[in-house]
Amino acid sequence: MKLPPFNSPIFRQLIEFKSNTYTYILGCHKTGKAAIIDPVVDTASRDVQILRDLNLDLVYGLNTHVHADHVTGTNELRNAFPSMKSVLCSKSGGEADKYVSNGYVIEVGGLKLEVRETPGHTNGCVSYVEHHLKSIFTGDALLIRACGRTDFQQGNPSTLFDSVHKQIFSLPEDYVIYVGHNYDGILQTTVWEEKNLNPRLTKSKEEFVKFMKNMKLPYPKQIDAAVPANMKDGKGGKN
Amino acid sequence: MKLPPFNSPIFRQLIEFKSNTYTYILGCHKTGKAAIIDPVVDTASRDVQILRDLNLDLVYGLNTHVHADHVTGTNELRNAFPSMKSVLCSKSGGEADKYVSNGYVIEVGGLKLEVRETPGHTNGCVSYVEHHLKSIFTGDALLIRACGRTDFQQGNPSTLFDSVHKQIFSLPEDYVIYVGHNYDGILQTTVWEEKNLNPRLTKSKEEFVKFMKNMKLPYPKQIDAAVPANMKDGKGGKN
Repeated sequence: MKLPPFNSPIFRQLIEFKSNTYTYILGCHKTGKAAIIDPVVDTASRDVQILRDLNLDLVYGLNTHVHADHVTGTNELRNAFPSMKSVLCSKSGGEADKYVSNGYVIEVGGLKLEVRETPGHTNGCVSYVEHHLKSIFTGDALLIRACGRTDFQQGNPSTLFDSVHKQIFSLPEDYVIYVGHNYDGILQTTVWEEKNLNPRLTKSKEEFVKFMKNMKLPYPKQIDAAVPANMKDGKGGKN
Repeated sequence: MKLPPFNSPIFRQLIEFKSNTYTYILGCHKTGKAAIIDPVVDTASRDVQILRDLNLDLVYGLNTHVHADHVTGTNELRNAFPSMKSVLCSKSGGEADKYVSNGYVIEVGGLKLEVRETPGHTNGCVSYVEHHLKSIFTGDALLIRACGRTDFQQGNPSTLFDSVHKQIFSLPEDYVIYVGHNYDGILQTTVWEEKNLNPRLTKSKEEFVKFMKNMKLPYPKQIDAAVPANMKDGKGGKN
């Protein structure tokens, strides 16, 4: 299998427009091994095509958590790459091929994704840090100048506050943060920006908890269909 | 003015969802000087906020060409950063503060954007290459597995074929290509992929010209409003 003639890791950010979900492909340019973070069932065939075009072998399909706004693409991707293992946090309660917890390191060829548990949006939220790329993938724990909701699926604002401060803001300030969604079309932020400018997470813990408890957000449109399908690793959730 | 504590250039890709336009901010981490490529009037206030958050001084507002699908944000951005100079190709026929042509290098602090004329979608299309970042910004000349239309605004498929082969495919194969649009939610590609996998540009020149002439695409929705406003550097085009 001929790999592209690249001298550095392959990185792709992708969008699923319907649910405004950001998906990421990380590929090792030396071994051709790849992982995908937060794939969506609607765009799974697009992602398979990109992986095939780059001659990458998908070994892990990582979900940052059991999503409430879209059905994961992991089941579809495993159909295309049968040796792919889906991954969830051991505390998520969802079905997956492999479970991870704080401190575990997922190896994808030469790439190393360090698991950091960041609960608060759900009990089983994890972020993945790739130190060589100076990047963290936070799913819905930390968003750009915002954060994930804490009013359903075991949400807990006090826990979320601690997760962000201890597990994300402790990283070097130039690390790029890649999030799960952004409705303004912003694709990346940094630890420095969110530490200094996030209007929620720069509050005191007490003020943050009060703010999150008073948000009165509408019930998520896709949750009743998405969560049961995602608890089963996306099986039966094909659009 | 305090700059973020970063050791490498600042790069931001952004989307304007209505016209599916990709905008780019490039910032020099040493001097705080920045350029924006293909800003959109609808998202100009978002872009101003990001530049201010990062304490960047916007010195250039670059348009890859006179756009037909959205109104440029350069005029709005100059209102926020009065010393910003808008930039267009000298062959574009449009109004701008500064005109560039093939081989010119735009300096943005320590960043250097090399101008490569890539006509064919319009007469005044340019791509910008930043060799340190191993990146090229192609606007609508080359798209992901596709290319810009050649059926309006001085479009010429033969010219476009030569532009892509001579000015883009001549770059090292690991250079990342950042395009103007992608309706599948793909955000980046590489010279290697497009040289090997672009279904149009891997054809012979004769076949490519024939293919482009037979596309029979619908008339662009925004062209009658967008082109006159963009010929005047976005003036009078605020939504």
